[in-house]
Amino acid sequence: MKIARVVKSDRETFGLVKDGKIATKDDITQSTGIPIPMNIRDFLFDGWFEEILPKIDEIEFKHDLSDFDVLAPIPNPNKIICLAFNYKDHAEEQKLTPPKEPAIVNKPRTALNGTNAEIICPNFVKELDYEIELALIIGKKCKNISEEEAMDVIFGYMILNDVSARDIQAMDKQFTRAKSFDGFAPCGPWITTKDEIDDPQNLKLTTKINGQIRQDSTTSNMFIKIPSIISILSKSITLEPGDIISTGTAAGVALNNPNIPYLKDGDHIEMEIEKIGTIQNKVRFVD
Amino acid sequence: MKIARVVKSDRETFGLVKDGKIATKDDITQSTGIPIPMNIRDFLFDGWFEEILPKIDEIEFKHDLSDFDVLAPIPNPNKIICLAFNYKDHAEEQKLTPPKEPAIVNKPRTALNGTNAEIICPNFVKELDYEIELALIIGKKCKNISEEEAMDVIFGYMILNDVSARDIQAMDKQFTRAKSFDGFAPCGPWITTKDEIDDPQNLKLTTKINGQIRQDSTTSNMFIKIPSIISILSKSITLEPGDIISTGTAAGVALNNPNIPYLKDGDHIEMEIEKIGTIQNKVRFVD
Repeated sequence: MKIARVVKSDRETFGLVKDGKIATKDDITQSTGIPIPMNIRDFLFDGWFEEILPKIDEIEFKHDLSDFDVLAPIPNPNKIICLAFNYKDHAEEQKLTPPKEPAIVNKPRTALNGTNAEIICPNFVKELDYEIELALIIGKKCKNISEEEAMDVIFGYMILNDVSARDIQAMDKQFTRAKSFDGFAPCGPWITTKDEIDDPQNLKLTTKINGQIRQDSTTSNMFIKIPSIISILSKSITLEPGDIISTGTAAGVALNNPNIPYLKDGDHIEMEIEKIGTIQNKVRFVD
Repeated sequence: MKIARVVKSDRETFGLVKDGKIATKDDITQSTGIPIPMNIRDFLFDGWFEEILPKIDEIEFKHDLSDFDVLAPIPNPNKIICLAFNYKDHAEEQKLTPPKEPAIVNKPRTALNGTNAEIICPNFVKELDYEIELALIIGKKCKNISEEEAMDVIFGYMILNDVSARDIQAMDKQFTRAKSFDGFAPCGPWITTKDEIDDPQNLKLTTKINGQIRQDSTTSNMFIKIPSIISILSKSITLEPGDIISTGTAAGVALNNPNIPYLKDGDHIEMEIEKIGTIQNKVRFVD
């Protein structure tokens, strides 16, 4: 199943996506007779989603998804946790020693950005960079869970672009401010539920800038695998439904790469993860 | 004005505090006839607080505050931004060069902890440390504001203990995970509105561990002053009502201080900021 949050003519809604069509919450209610709450987080994690599953074949996918703008799937997660680095190819490129445990940065929810929206960056940032990441959506409240239990708490997956102002990152040493700008977390295109992904540790991921491939890797290159990420983080932090954990990026970013330029005004970023989808964002610099 | 969130016999409420007494939301409604919403963030920032101000003299402060447990004032802030370091005496002690701009860490809301609650820390943490900080509560949504406008967006102040696992911090290099553990942000004792604080840049702050003074400084030791913190952060991040910005800590922490031991099971932490109040937390280590 794929769940997207969308907007048309200032009217926001969400629904199920299939083959370029969307069944909005109102369509779902019309088809199944089940009233759906206004908030997508309530819909997904407070019982409604399970309630409609047995009636899924009755749902009519009425609308063309292309008639809508696609938004970040969950607008109000309690946490957006991004791994600082976790890919073998990225470690080689940046000359970093492998991490034993996940170093993280928390992005504020004001960083969330739509699947096809502009990344609007203030002009004082001189080194704007991109990072394609596989993001996990947590489905259950949990603490201190084992690696064996970890996959059970995942609800689904999406793409997250961990946009980073490298000059701010270098000045602060801490990465948080550099990654916390408004709009520095484009994500989507939708939440793909975990039953659709046989092996999340074997997905190709690709970033193209203005059509040129820059990142071309696979989630098999993660040092710390997904069950271990969840287990280790849950030893210190209670994870909650809707929390986003973004699992680090691959080689091919502009940072420390003399052959790759930083992002400039008008650049088009296309990020694709196999079986998850594609997000496309344009960069705009403003005073 | 002082606003506290409290609990007694599992019943949570909030209210105004004066001289050891509290007028709960129900008391305020009874005295003024104004119905008060359930959520303290709605009460403070959606118009109700302003509405009761003209009737403040009619409000009866019925209950002894000591009959309640005092909770973190706002349970659901969108952001908890903590400055990584910002005090002259702390910079000397840690041999750090002065920051030009505020390096930050975002704590998740699961880190919030009560004014007098236990800090429960897993046993794998070997170097648990404390940091007294003056925390600002933002009252208005804002972006790109000048230093001149910055004080207008502050609603009030409180104490925040930026509890930190220094061994995790050293391993990760990034400070976020070390500061994001559940309960690693005890705060309070209440929100003191800004009209009660003539000069927030001239407040004594003191930390005692088991009665011994460890941190003894003043907010005049900040490198980056409050208007500048707000102005700079707002150039990248939209600030929202209820957001917490914690302004960094002073000298006297255990980190890199051979004469000061890290926190151990049973330690009692008392933090006081002049005109703001006192928070007291006991440390408990668990398997």
